[in-house]
Amino acid sequence: MLTPREDVLRKCQDAKQAAPILALASTDDKNKGLTQMAAALQDHQDEILQANTVDIEKAQAAGAAQAFIDRLTLTPARIAEMAQGLCEVAALPDPVGEAVQMFRRPNGLDIAQIRVPLGVVGIIYEARPNVTADAAGLCLKAGNAVVLRGSSDALNSNQVIVSVLKQALQDAGLPAGAINLIEDVSREAAAEMMRMHGYIDVLVPRGGAGLIKAVVETASIPVIETGVGNCHAYVDASADLEMARNIVINGKCQRPAVCNALETLLVHADVAEQFLPQMVQELQDNGVEVRGDKRVRKWACVKPAVESDWEEEYLDLIIAVKVVDSLEAAIEHVNRYGTKHSETIITKDYAAARKFLQAVDAAAVYANASTRFTDGGQFGLGAEIGISTQKLHARGPMGVTELTSTKFVIHGDGQVR
Amino acid sequence: MLTPREDVLRKCQDAKQAAPILALASTDDKNKGLTQMAAALQDHQDEILQANTVDIEKAQAAGAAQAFIDRLTLTPARIAEMAQGLCEVAALPDPVGEAVQMFRRPNGLDIAQIRVPLGVVGIIYEARPNVTADAAGLCLKAGNAVVLRGSSDALNSNQVIVSVLKQALQDAGLPAGAINLIEDVSREAAAEMMRMHGYIDVLVPRGGAGLIKAVVETASIPVIETGVGNCHAYVDASADLEMARNIVINGKCQRPAVCNALETLLVHADVAEQFLPQMVQELQDNGVEVRGDKRVRKWACVKPAVESDWEEEYLDLIIAVKVVDSLEAAIEHVNRYGTKHSETIITKDYAAARKFLQAVDAAAVYANASTRFTDGGQFGLGAEIGISTQKLHARGPMGVTELTSTKFVIHGDGQVR
Repeated sequence: MLTPREDVLRKCQDAKQAAPILALASTDDKNKGLTQMAAALQDHQDEILQANTVDIEKAQAAGAAQAFIDRLTLTPARIAEMAQGLCEVAALPDPVGEAVQMFRRPNGLDIAQIRVPLGVVGIIYEARPNVTADAAGLCLKAGNAVVLRGSSDALNSNQVIVSVLKQALQDAGLPAGAINLIEDVSREAAAEMMRMHGYIDVLVPRGGAGLIKAVVETASIPVIETGVGNCHAYVDASADLEMARNIVINGKCQRPAVCNALETLLVHADVAEQFLPQMVQELQDNGVEVRGDKRVRKWACVKPAVESDWEEEYLDLIIAVKVVDSLEAAIEHVNRYGTKHSETIITKDYAAARKFLQAVDAAAVYANASTRFTDGGQFGLGAEIGISTQKLHARGPMGVTELTSTKFVIHGDGQVR
Repeated sequence: MLTPREDVLRKCQDAKQAAPILALASTDDKNKGLTQMAAALQDHQDEILQANTVDIEKAQAAGAAQAFIDRLTLTPARIAEMAQGLCEVAALPDPVGEAVQMFRRPNGLDIAQIRVPLGVVGIIYEARPNVTADAAGLCLKAGNAVVLRGSSDALNSNQVIVSVLKQALQDAGLPAGAINLIEDVSREAAAEMMRMHGYIDVLVPRGGAGLIKAVVETASIPVIETGVGNCHAYVDASADLEMARNIVINGKCQRPAVCNALETLLVHADVAEQFLPQMVQELQDNGVEVRGDKRVRKWACVKPAVESDWEEEYLDLIIAVKVVDSLEAAIEHVNRYGTKHSETIITKDYAAARKFLQAVDAAAVYANASTRFTDGGQFGLGAEIGISTQKLHARGPMGVTELTSTKFVIHGDGQVR
């Protein structure tokens, strides 16, 4: 029996050994690996479903909520989606080797800034076994080895998926150490992983606010924060109110459990009377619980919003609504309570749009569009490893390009200073 | 008397309040500020020199080494250089507002990824008062507020410089909170600064390996590691040996105390006999202490190198020399002992150059040129805030561009998903 430290160290060592091989692997070889990984998932569908059944039965026995069981559950269709995802990653352009810039200096030195893999990427995620294949595929495409640490609830599923993927890689002539799963699902092992200086180059937590906060606080290796989204829509005095209603309904109701869903609606006082009664009605007709400040409750019969409502990412059919006196007040509210994810203004006023887009500090700022577009696929960037809400390295949807670093490559003829 | 926590918190609050104003400041306004900062340094030269004399006398009384006193000492010429540096930063292109990419989606959304300031940058540095003005200037150009924490030995100098710069900013109509100096120079205050989540967006330590290690270990906010350079030159079997000697002498002797200076020389066994005697002699003629492995000592009379020599950044006229049997052995040595800063191969062999450039994992890899070129100015990138040796966000010389983040700005006409 390995100690938590030993399990983590062994997996990290395997990843570190594989990383330089992957860094030099050709695009063709990596794509062959991805394609064989996709095929292997389908070829071993029965084994994967069997292991998944064990996880589901354990979760049911422990009395897990239905939404949790849903996320944990794999089906032939979901496995086909995972395989399809890997094929889509194979079809993406390879970021490695791309020149970010390239120039010749007066002394004749040719300097190129070239994309290279990060090395070893750590992913910590919750009970969604499909993330196992998605994350492994994206990391491989960018030439990185990956160390995965999934939830204990999905351990059986993850073990079979990773073993199938590792075999596929070996069959494709790539090192099995490209994909590694921490099988000790204790907190101690997770904490060890977050301190693997010299082994893991970057840690990406994927999951809810609690998981991300825990990783940011515990990790001593660089972390990319992802995903928490307290997103706002601001309906300006000049807004096209029908457009505003469409965007609010889309943002709140289309898929409330995701990070780019709308959580707070700000309405300019000048249009509050005209806009709010119908908007609130429409939200309620869509099953949304509306919580409003004092002035909202002048125009609509809703539950009072309290201070904590402005801070909360509901991820549910609940929305907080506030009346503001000016564009500036809206910007201030967004910058104060937002999580720097996605924010939108609905306006016909050129200056208001320009000011909101410039002054709001977030990964994605919109004029007259739904916050639901903040997504690698919707942006046309391909599959994403997460949506970064921090400012260093990557901000917004992170695809394969964000899983790379750069190095300067300099060709000379004997130049000295 | 403020507690360490209070001093740090107050300065960080001032910075955070100034940041959104700086983020929206025009290039003209920022350049005006930089120009007035430069003028103010020269106008207040006497005050600055007077404060500097106090610092120098204290350091002398404490028995500081001459090299330390040299770094601490300001002169009219050095103040003129600081002013000149600010004018050069004013002349650089403004990275803020630059589109990294911009595209239209099939649904008509126009998506631009735009450079924006990071927000608040923290700089922790040693007893070089010129860094105070350099760092403040670069941060301002990129639209950031800065919180500076210099060495206690330079406190008087830093206080006067910062007060002069703050006044100049105010005269230029910019917030004085753009530049802040932590005046409590206790370790407690430094540790507080490294944990100012929500206030400081990134921390850049500038100084020796000890300072950088301490910051990386203590900080809970994102850090960009800079500057430690255990740089190698590898003389391949096919090298032009005269070129190799030039590059080695330049790398080791031109300025041994800097991070891109050479620390280890690797020589292919096939040319050891022909190359080493003269190379070692030439190094010794330049006052360099040579430490060689067993095989080096067959060809030259030098002190034995021990394991720790391969790891050390001497920053002095000392070099470790080793004979290797192959290009692969050289690459392995570099990737094992290097600090991922700057590495060079001297070769006439196309395949060897290509392999070294691809397989060596460092911020800058050279073929047939001196490692001494790793520098923002030499690369033509303008003044630098440091040389990043990490892989996230920035790698290699970091200029104003690396002091920015990005955001996605999306213009729509009511699009929903």
